[in-house]
Amino acid sequence: MSYSYEFPRPALTVDCAIFGLDKESMQLQLMLIQRNLPPFLGMWALPGGFVRMDESLEEAARRELREETGIDSVYLEQLYTFGDVGRDPRDRIVTVAYYALVNSCEHSLNATTDASEAAWFPVTQLPPLAFDHSRIFEVALTRLKGKVRYQPIGFELLPKKFTLTQLQRLYEIILGTDLDKRNFRKKILNMNLLVQLDETQKDVSHRAARLYQFDEQKYLQLKQMGFNFEI
Amino acid sequence: MSYSYEFPRPALTVDCAIFGLDKESMQLQLMLIQRNLPPFLGMWALPGGFVRMDESLEEAARRELREETGIDSVYLEQLYTFGDVGRDPRDRIVTVAYYALVNSCEHSLNATTDASEAAWFPVTQLPPLAFDHSRIFEVALTRLKGKVRYQPIGFELLPKKFTLTQLQRLYEIILGTDLDKRNFRKKILNMNLLVQLDETQKDVSHRAARLYQFDEQKYLQLKQMGFNFEI
Repeated sequence: MSYSYEFPRPALTVDCAIFGLDKESMQLQLMLIQRNLPPFLGMWALPGGFVRMDESLEEAARRELREETGIDSVYLEQLYTFGDVGRDPRDRIVTVAYYALVNSCEHSLNATTDASEAAWFPVTQLPPLAFDHSRIFEVALTRLKGKVRYQPIGFELLPKKFTLTQLQRLYEIILGTDLDKRNFRKKILNMNLLVQLDETQKDVSHRAARLYQFDEQKYLQLKQMGFNFEI
Repeated sequence: MSYSYEFPRPALTVDCAIFGLDKESMQLQLMLIQRNLPPFLGMWALPGGFVRMDESLEEAARRELREETGIDSVYLEQLYTFGDVGRDPRDRIVTVAYYALVNSCEHSLNATTDASEAAWFPVTQLPPLAFDHSRIFEVALTRLKGKVRYQPIGFELLPKKFTLTQLQRLYEIILGTDLDKRNFRKKILNMNLLVQLDETQKDVSHRAARLYQFDEQKYLQLKQMGFNFEI
């Protein structure tokens, strides 16, 4: 450690913007924890906490998420690092934010020591958030909406076999807007991303719709290459 | 400071991957500084340094870039934060990387105290880099190549009036690959991004080519909305 840096250091945290898709309520949700420590005692915040010396940033994000919400094994992507002076009243604290989109019904919540409660909130009805977490949420939501225009989505969120209506609803939930049915179908089918199955829905009261599944190879290729899905 | 974090903290640095477009040599270049302090004494590295307590991350990046290279007033974008344990032999050090693409001939270099020398290197002929800076460079180059597929480029890099050949060369330099002339022209003209001028090149020995300029409003709109330029 002969070249160690001897000056004051900002503290370093990680925060997680975990979006959940609730297929029952057809809503996009955000995972929040209620703080049981000052500052912002009792307010809702993104799950997160201080980075330890012996763990990577992503390991810290996973650990905090697990400790505060019970959520485990989620594919986290780094979002952005927020480091403005004064963003935290305690000290100079820089936070590396991560985000993920998960199937919320598959992730039951289990708050433990650090947070008194963890809960899903519809993104359209969030409570006031602690720190600059509203801004982190806005950046994450913008990234998520941008992402669905460049990469395919749904593989981890839809059932293996799904209808075009289900896929369209997924896009509508994330983008927060209604899409034209004919236009959506034309575009999504033109991408050669879907395999039309020789099957229709079962056990439905309305006319059974055609089922599709993703062409896995094409899905991975588009995920890597990107495209532009103009909506 | 009653809630201050009392545990050991990683040190925090910023690093800058500054890409330069050299229109004389038609090369994509990277700005490097030669370290005059251990560790990695004498090796080349990205310009960067420790974040002070009273400056934002971007302010730190600008200051380090100015101090080490003399480059000022560049539009920096945050790239990614690298925080693996052991990435720096001195200590646990996390770095927030920024990147930019500039016109290298407009940025003369002026190394000062922290670095013994600053220089542009063609990205195809980089020396071995200190720390994990080769990885940071790779991530930055991938981001830059991805970016030109989704956003227009050239406004800050080309002369106000330019030929389609000049614009194509810009794409070829960044992407590091030759493009088909007819295909490129068809695609770029279809975007309605360019205004064809009633002028041709002057003072050229070959047949004077048509001049174009960007439609500024369309340029900004595409920059914000994104598109997909399949190449």
